[in-house]
Amino acid sequence: MQDPFDQKKQAILNEITLNSEDNLDASPKGTIDEHCIPIINLINSDPNMVTTSSCSGRVSVFLEGKKQENDTKIIAKGNEGRWLFVTHDTSDLNNWYTKVDFKYHENQFPPQDNNHRSISFKFEPLILHVKCRDLDQATKLYTCAMNNGFRESGIGSNFNVAIRISIKLDIPIGYYENDTEELISFVSESYLDYVTKLSFERFNENFKKLDQLYKSIECLIKSSSSESSSSGITKKESKEERRQRKIREGLQRQQETKKLKEQQEAQKELEQ
Amino acid sequence: MQDPFDQKKQAILNEITLNSEDNLDASPKGTIDEHCIPIINLINSDPNMVTTSSCSGRVSVFLEGKKQENDTKIIAKGNEGRWLFVTHDTSDLNNWYTKVDFKYHENQFPPQDNNHRSISFKFEPLILHVKCRDLDQATKLYTCAMNNGFRESGIGSNFNVAIRISIKLDIPIGYYENDTEELISFVSESYLDYVTKLSFERFNENFKKLDQLYKSIECLIKSSSSESSSSGITKKESKEERRQRKIREGLQRQQETKKLKEQQEAQKELEQ
Repeated sequence: MQDPFDQKKQAILNEITLNSEDNLDASPKGTIDEHCIPIINLINSDPNMVTTSSCSGRVSVFLEGKKQENDTKIIAKGNEGRWLFVTHDTSDLNNWYTKVDFKYHENQFPPQDNNHRSISFKFEPLILHVKCRDLDQATKLYTCAMNNGFRESGIGSNFNVAIRISIKLDIPIGYYENDTEELISFVSESYLDYVTKLSFERFNENFKKLDQLYKSIECLIKSSSSESSSSGITKKESKEERRQRKIREGLQRQQETKKLKEQQEAQKELEQ
Repeated sequence: MQDPFDQKKQAILNEITLNSEDNLDASPKGTIDEHCIPIINLINSDPNMVTTSSCSGRVSVFLEGKKQENDTKIIAKGNEGRWLFVTHDTSDLNNWYTKVDFKYHENQFPPQDNNHRSISFKFEPLILHVKCRDLDQATKLYTCAMNNGFRESGIGSNFNVAIRISIKLDIPIGYYENDTEELISFVSESYLDYVTKLSFERFNENFKKLDQLYKSIECLIKSSSSESSSSGITKKESKEERRQRKIREGLQRQQETKKLKEQQEAQKELEQ
């Protein structure tokens, strides 16, 4: 019988392989962030780890939902809460605010009550959740993350490691005017432009950190596999390992095809 | 010989007891936040846990330091970086910006280079670090924190638990003008007033969460101590436990005296 960790890992890898624009997962976006795919593949190539969720970092502009009467939540996420803009990439970040129907009422703030719904601009960095086989592996991964500046990382229950870094922005920029149903920005367009530029810097730092982490986890995996081979464990690929490798290779091919298709489409658009 | 955890705990408790305005610790503020003292005393009353650092939550306005030429850090903390304002309490939060010598140049932003030093307004919630005797205790405390909404908590190396929650604000509000040596605010005073009001809400939520956490850890400690008594472990106070209790009681007395003194002084001021 298969060990519970291997069983769980196999189920997760199956889900990852089947995930696509036509087959969304349970996350708000529904698909895996492109920038996370290399590190996900790397981590999943180790028999003692499997990724359970990820976000490569994003800029988001969120209109909070309607609050209940006695709701004391800081930001209500449900009940008509929605994103006005999200990107995981710098490529469509410039001038994002021109695509949102903001009315600029500079320095006109809503009353401090439960009826108004706030709008926030956020930069949120990379976050990765990795399930490890045991405490030893979880501690190794945790240490690796901390050494690379992911100082808000931690081990959770069942050897789940959360890899987190604290380069955030969280800025109140406006609110929803219930009477007129308008999106009011109480900061100027030039302020939105300024914080957008700051987000470019943060994306750069974020991806630099992601690269560092990738290299460091690569070393960790290499040193573990050389440890296990030198300790006499056979290196011949088992039926299960072969199956997992096939799944990974399939996922990689799928991504490469998708990228190629996008490049072709972009090329077509340029030619028109 | 004393067990290493007990030794470490004793050293930490000694430091806590000696800590005062005249004997600062290594933290930027130098003393323990008043709001943390009850939960610190509670946690330290358990023989399997000791607090190693804490911040009860704060509003801070930080002027970053000078960056080096090839510095790619998002915010430079050292090299003349300094707080323009910090509070751990709502009592001196109102109108804080009138006590900072800001020049309001609304919507005039600095160039995107390494020479300018940014000013940020932040709300940072409670954070607590607790060293536990073993994985079992660390997991119990971690689960307790997660169940109370401290969703960014995690276990670190050597069973150190970080208790974190994500109700932050991180808002760019200005910069230091090198030529004129002025503190420029590129947002309006009314915007600063608005985000200050939002911070009141966050402080309330933060202290509500701290209370919840306190009660929950109290239950955890009670259930552990009844477990250990029912499992036949003697309840008689050992020499070491007595010593630790004395240290705690001393700390509590010291705090109470301090509070009383402050109240008397506030009363005096009112009477003048």
